[in-house]
Amino acid sequence: MNLSHRITHITPGGSDGWEVFYKSRQMIADGVDVVELTIGEHDIRTDPIILDAMHAAAKGGHTGYAMVPGIVALRDKVAARLQAQSGIPTTRDNILITPGGQAALFAAHLACCNEGDVALICDPYYATYPGTVRGIGATPRPVICTPENNFQPQKADILAASEGATSILINTPNNPTGVVYDAATVRGIAEAATHADLWVISDEVYDSQVWKGAHISPRSLPDMADRTLIVGSMSKSHAMTGSRVGWVAGPVQAIEHLTNLATHTTYGVAGYIQDAALFALNQGPAFEAEIGAPFKRRRALAKSVINGQNVVKMINSDGAMYLMLDIRATGLSATDFAYGLLHAHHIAVMPGDSFGQAAAGHIRVAMTIEDTKFTQALETLCTFAANQIP
Amino acid sequence: MNLSHRITHITPGGSDGWEVFYKSRQMIADGVDVVELTIGEHDIRTDPIILDAMHAAAKGGHTGYAMVPGIVALRDKVAARLQAQSGIPTTRDNILITPGGQAALFAAHLACCNEGDVALICDPYYATYPGTVRGIGATPRPVICTPENNFQPQKADILAASEGATSILINTPNNPTGVVYDAATVRGIAEAATHADLWVISDEVYDSQVWKGAHISPRSLPDMADRTLIVGSMSKSHAMTGSRVGWVAGPVQAIEHLTNLATHTTYGVAGYIQDAALFALNQGPAFEAEIGAPFKRRRALAKSVINGQNVVKMINSDGAMYLMLDIRATGLSATDFAYGLLHAHHIAVMPGDSFGQAAAGHIRVAMTIEDTKFTQALETLCTFAANQIP
Repeated sequence: MNLSHRITHITPGGSDGWEVFYKSRQMIADGVDVVELTIGEHDIRTDPIILDAMHAAAKGGHTGYAMVPGIVALRDKVAARLQAQSGIPTTRDNILITPGGQAALFAAHLACCNEGDVALICDPYYATYPGTVRGIGATPRPVICTPENNFQPQKADILAASEGATSILINTPNNPTGVVYDAATVRGIAEAATHADLWVISDEVYDSQVWKGAHISPRSLPDMADRTLIVGSMSKSHAMTGSRVGWVAGPVQAIEHLTNLATHTTYGVAGYIQDAALFALNQGPAFEAEIGAPFKRRRALAKSVINGQNVVKMINSDGAMYLMLDIRATGLSATDFAYGLLHAHHIAVMPGDSFGQAAAGHIRVAMTIEDTKFTQALETLCTFAANQIP
Repeated sequence: MNLSHRITHITPGGSDGWEVFYKSRQMIADGVDVVELTIGEHDIRTDPIILDAMHAAAKGGHTGYAMVPGIVALRDKVAARLQAQSGIPTTRDNILITPGGQAALFAAHLACCNEGDVALICDPYYATYPGTVRGIGATPRPVICTPENNFQPQKADILAASEGATSILINTPNNPTGVVYDAATVRGIAEAATHADLWVISDEVYDSQVWKGAHISPRSLPDMADRTLIVGSMSKSHAMTGSRVGWVAGPVQAIEHLTNLATHTTYGVAGYIQDAALFALNQGPAFEAEIGAPFKRRRALAKSVINGQNVVKMINSDGAMYLMLDIRATGLSATDFAYGLLHAHHIAVMPGDSFGQAAAGHIRVAMTIEDTKFTQALETLCTFAANQIP
């Protein structure tokens, strides 16, 4: 029996750039003690106070169908959070609660793009972006972000890629680079999107992890709220990755249609998980800062290690859980470097090629192990890099 | 900004046939004591032992990303359950865990149909079916199931509708009718699907609620496993509606692609909810029988009431949480009947027109209130019906 073109073409054949990751997982399964610096999962679990709030909600009877767009109190809370951050008036009618940020990314693209449309994505990108676009039957077109521009998308490059495009997907703070888009970058995105009449789908799931400056959403710029859909999540900000709860924020009419889509794709999110998310958001900014603190601290540790040598360079990254390291001085490809490091020292990192073409010659390091081990691993990585130079 | 054709056409404009339901909800919001016989939600909550198992799993640390296709133990358990039911060899590789049955319905259609394809649905149908098909960009085409055939789809009618179609969506035990497809019906579906080369998407979320005879899945018939995708759920069988956990079962290759789709649409299901679902399934058939017992009991009560008069007729229904009542003898349309009953007696039922065209002149009664009140409501309904006759 034939399957649909869409589902069979979500991922292209051949290498997906994740071979080093799979190899490291296999080594772990075989009992090897691998230092894992690969994926964006906190080294803490969801806080027990959040889990207790969830249990209380469930035992209190919130186990039936919840309202499809989300419970009112959570939509209100998310709206207030976005309004405080952006200054843009935001109410519950601008918010749809989704089962995680990935569901929000999929729904946002389905809402904006017709079959066959072109959707822009910034390269390097989070691994699911191209497949998400292909899954809704559209074609991803990369906007290359270069290390020379600190991996921030440039207005001219967006405009050059925008012929026939319907949307652009951006991500700040960025995975995989850790870069926080500055005001000029966000302004350039807004100008290009307005000029080319693009929807802006803005993945802001790391918005609480900004170590310098401020998070700037394109939705906060003049006349941008009508063409922006924000993707948000509790995963990174509150270490609730496994709970699968996030949101889309956008114009009222778009949210109405997205709610209709949710009725037909997910039928809402567990009420007790929404109650837990509300409880977590009500803990306030100090709680989120505590969740993010290890990554801020480890970025500083990494900076000291990197400053102590001159082979590996560090991309200026002010957010999220990742570092992007430039290893071009070694003469190795990122994949060869990652394989070499894995075999020689049992340290697993992601080649930049796992995230598109633009980060070739770079590796992504997830700052998701405890400080001392993290520092040691980076020192070993730098020594390994130095030893590669002929 | 324009939204995509798909999302704006999920529901057509004009009446959706649910006005009586909205009216009853508004009356309840306004403080009126309405007897609700409208939607398929148990009058019990999720059993506390399931919620305690969930909490233990979460507190035990299962709060990070779970494997996208589902945790191995749950996939194994669902596979064993389906194999025991059908006799068809089934392993974890045939199972994808989804965030609820609706997500499974959407994914199954996306897997089978390309944009512009025709997908057959049996009319009367569960309310989300046409929108689910439109949401993936395909066109729903009804197969009319008549009261004369006890609302079971006929082979000849499927064949007549199958020109250019890619799939057929069936549902046994059936919502809205409560009918359980008999062996001849399922054989007819299998023969028609084979002849017309259709995928069969088989919604079996009520498979544990069969009061007479047995549940028969088309997947259990010879040579049908390769063209059948089963949609399952914990919602109805274990009163876990709000927890949003279900599955698709099908050929290994389809499940591989559906897993890839899941990576890009939902990124899996909360691990602690999967642990709770596994715990619930491990309680065995007696537990499921207890969840279903009230509906079996109330169907018997309803039969006594209906047998005591001769205006309202009852469709021969052997499963699920619903009764379909034929009120054509009153001369009223189902909608007029439902409005009249709501206004005169504050009893809310669903006109058959809420579920397509085929159940015109019928009303659906959800057996979801306690026995005495349920019997009284049905008696009132019958008296009301008798009083409509000129």
